[in-house]
Amino acid sequence: MNENMWKPDRQAKTPIYRQIAGHMEGRIRSGEFPPGSVLPSERKLAAMLRVNRTTVIQAYEELRSLGLVERAVGSGTRVAGPAAGTVKTPNWRQYLESGTFLPNVPAMRRIRSELNVEAPVIDFASGELSADLFPNDIVRKLLQERPYSGYLGYDDPQGFRPLREALSRFLRRYLNVEASESSLIVTSGSQQSLFLITHCLLQPGDAVAVEDPSYCRSLSLFESAGLKVLRLRADRREGLDPDDIVALHRRHRLKMIFTNPNFQNPTGTVLSAERKRRLLDVAAEWGIPIVEDDPFSLTAFDGNVPPPLRSMDAGGQVLYIGSLSKIAASGLRIGWLAAPGSVVSRLADARRQMDFGLSTIPQWVAAEFLDSGEFDRHLRDLRLKLAYKLDSLRVALDAHLPGETEYRVPEGGLNLWVQWRRPIDDLRLFEQAVREGVVYVPGSVYGSDADCFRLCFARPRLDQIEEGVVRLSEALRKIAGPTPS
Amino acid sequence: MNENMWKPDRQAKTPIYRQIAGHMEGRIRSGEFPPGSVLPSERKLAAMLRVNRTTVIQAYEELRSLGLVERAVGSGTRVAGPAAGTVKTPNWRQYLESGTFLPNVPAMRRIRSELNVEAPVIDFASGELSADLFPNDIVRKLLQERPYSGYLGYDDPQGFRPLREALSRFLRRYLNVEASESSLIVTSGSQQSLFLITHCLLQPGDAVAVEDPSYCRSLSLFESAGLKVLRLRADRREGLDPDDIVALHRRHRLKMIFTNPNFQNPTGTVLSAERKRRLLDVAAEWGIPIVEDDPFSLTAFDGNVPPPLRSMDAGGQVLYIGSLSKIAASGLRIGWLAAPGSVVSRLADARRQMDFGLSTIPQWVAAEFLDSGEFDRHLRDLRLKLAYKLDSLRVALDAHLPGETEYRVPEGGLNLWVQWRRPIDDLRLFEQAVREGVVYVPGSVYGSDADCFRLCFARPRLDQIEEGVVRLSEALRKIAGPTPS
Repeated sequence: MNENMWKPDRQAKTPIYRQIAGHMEGRIRSGEFPPGSVLPSERKLAAMLRVNRTTVIQAYEELRSLGLVERAVGSGTRVAGPAAGTVKTPNWRQYLESGTFLPNVPAMRRIRSELNVEAPVIDFASGELSADLFPNDIVRKLLQERPYSGYLGYDDPQGFRPLREALSRFLRRYLNVEASESSLIVTSGSQQSLFLITHCLLQPGDAVAVEDPSYCRSLSLFESAGLKVLRLRADRREGLDPDDIVALHRRHRLKMIFTNPNFQNPTGTVLSAERKRRLLDVAAEWGIPIVEDDPFSLTAFDGNVPPPLRSMDAGGQVLYIGSLSKIAASGLRIGWLAAPGSVVSRLADARRQMDFGLSTIPQWVAAEFLDSGEFDRHLRDLRLKLAYKLDSLRVALDAHLPGETEYRVPEGGLNLWVQWRRPIDDLRLFEQAVREGVVYVPGSVYGSDADCFRLCFARPRLDQIEEGVVRLSEALRKIAGPTPS
Repeated sequence: MNENMWKPDRQAKTPIYRQIAGHMEGRIRSGEFPPGSVLPSERKLAAMLRVNRTTVIQAYEELRSLGLVERAVGSGTRVAGPAAGTVKTPNWRQYLESGTFLPNVPAMRRIRSELNVEAPVIDFASGELSADLFPNDIVRKLLQERPYSGYLGYDDPQGFRPLREALSRFLRRYLNVEASESSLIVTSGSQQSLFLITHCLLQPGDAVAVEDPSYCRSLSLFESAGLKVLRLRADRREGLDPDDIVALHRRHRLKMIFTNPNFQNPTGTVLSAERKRRLLDVAAEWGIPIVEDDPFSLTAFDGNVPPPLRSMDAGGQVLYIGSLSKIAASGLRIGWLAAPGSVVSRLADARRQMDFGLSTIPQWVAAEFLDSGEFDRHLRDLRLKLAYKLDSLRVALDAHLPGETEYRVPEGGLNLWVQWRRPIDDLRLFEQAVREGVVYVPGSVYGSDADCFRLCFARPRLDQIEEGVVRLSEALRKIAGPTPS
């Protein structure tokens, strides 16, 4: 046995334990380790491959779960016994290729795999707040001073009633949105609202319109559901043009329009009041429901919250989605959907087949938080800090990438949408940026804007922002040479 | 206007606010209230219909969400204006009939609507613990003494790592199941594990085998996913016969077997060690994965936990599902799936399109709870109390339904599966029982056993058990006459 012949590749995307499992599987199947033989001990293999023992344990567990080896305390890891020749282990690979859910976009998986590595990558990619912006102290205080002592059984799948009542007050007060508790369903973030709408109200083959560029996770979701996704060009100044919808509808019979009118992800634009009214009129005229995704309105840095479509919707056209993920903490997993009561009932019923509703504990935390004066203070503080981070990013871009980029400064949201001034190979630059230790979302992930990219200024710590831009400029220099003068 | 002409029906299944909305909608559409006219004030209509003002507000909100009326503070509720004739409100009814998710079984919806009413119905239907069996004090103490102060951002969609580590220790210690944290995914109860497996590993048209009778919620789930559900007859003494699988597989090419071998729901049977081994052999021989749903093993009243299939599975055939719902508290929404690492990764990736994982807070509570000595004490206490409740139910059945029923006394689980000795109209009896103020699950909901029914003895309070059986015997007497002597 010459273990020096093979070593795991630490640069590869496959986790090391899985590389080791694959390697050992090959050696078992090749007959090097016949049925019943004992594999090298965890300690020995770890030393030979220069990895942690836990990594070898994971690899051997993987082989065990595939039915290739048996493991018993004291007697080590053995190649599966006499029966191994005749046993048909389920062909998991084939099962993994089945299923109605499509895997997520490769670039997003790549970003995640980078973020899972221990090396300190600066993260402009994840669309969320940094840990210091979460209301950690408030949540800890709530848990401590008023620990949940309510019912711990199955809750109404429409959501914990005190939270729905708190949300109804919150929506009226902060967003001028009228929604009674009976017309609200609490969801695991905006994502689950989108998921429920997609699977309960639409069918494979249905045509839906989305902004281009738009929120990239929804694209996988729509494609998994077999929807025909049509793109509405959103210009960088004004967002989508409602009149484009008519032409699209005439050709494709739109079943739904998905839009994020305020501080749109990724462009940051706010649809003007005039375009909002026109959008509602067009939707009303043709009877097309609008799904309004509204995660960012309350981040408006100056406190002037742009009105959601839903607050202007007299005709009941709008299914309204919001969440605490971008304005408080994504780990609470609290989102909501305001919709006609019959729609809410249908979605709550379907959910009994999916997850049976959310835990009452974070719902209770959210209700207490929204009803406390703490939320108001938290929000004011958050706006100041977000504006300051955005400003730091602009200063860094101007200093370290002079003449290379163009952008419009948004008045809210978590993201800066940046355009390169010269032609750039989007994915090659991204790979180089990863090597320099910085990640962001390349424009091609969102649709057709490969000359753009999204920097989430909320996610890195304040002290990482400049260094992140320095790394990005280094990546650009290596791929495309110095800035042309 | 003669409001005396119509009143909401307080006995009807439709919520009162929705009855009022429907009534007012009819009057608007009939032209009684033309566009622009003002509807009766909330206070006035409430007085006329003798309902709470909040009920009228809900009704008017429903009309608003349907686009039929406009509401503004100070100017009341108006029928939608001049545009109302041309505006096409989305045809929500049509959307509600779309979607890939089938509504749940009518009898289950009926049970839930009864339980939502304020009247004190005795509940033998919900398959869960009564509130006094939850570890309320332990959870409150945990929240108070060690309030969560960890990261509040997006978590690994595979689940909070400290919980996966705690689960790995827990499964080894209590169930003799070896599963590393990397082979576990934390889910929102067993339901979400089933949902993920169904949608990520199977395709419409795939044949799966389930026990008959079996867990009724999974049937809707499977049908929504377009699976071909084949029933494996489970006899009341010994459960399913593994040799039946071969014949079924030859005809239908089974893609998966779903089973609940320990304290099966609803029958309470435990598959013998011999049948378990045979089941694993058959599955291995034909390469068919088994999904083992194991919510009840730890409830074994005498503490002799029957071994899960997964603990006997050398060949990696078994996807193993468990949860805290039946042994601690369903409202925590903590379940898990142990599976090969590649399967876990696929499911965790798909989940980013669904709910983006669970809140960290209940996951942290669960981890602390499992790692504390409190879990052990809780479990011993739970077993005693469950056994005592079951005993009370038996005594009550023998006293109040003498000669009418037959059952085998289970050694664990939450349910007693009871057979009527004489022919009974299953659903007619159920309707009568509802009128008497008691609910349970009629056998026909589970499959083909319309002469049986399930009583969950864990759910009613101890002091309700006898009264519940008295009400049931009253229902039987009214439907079928006195016990034949």
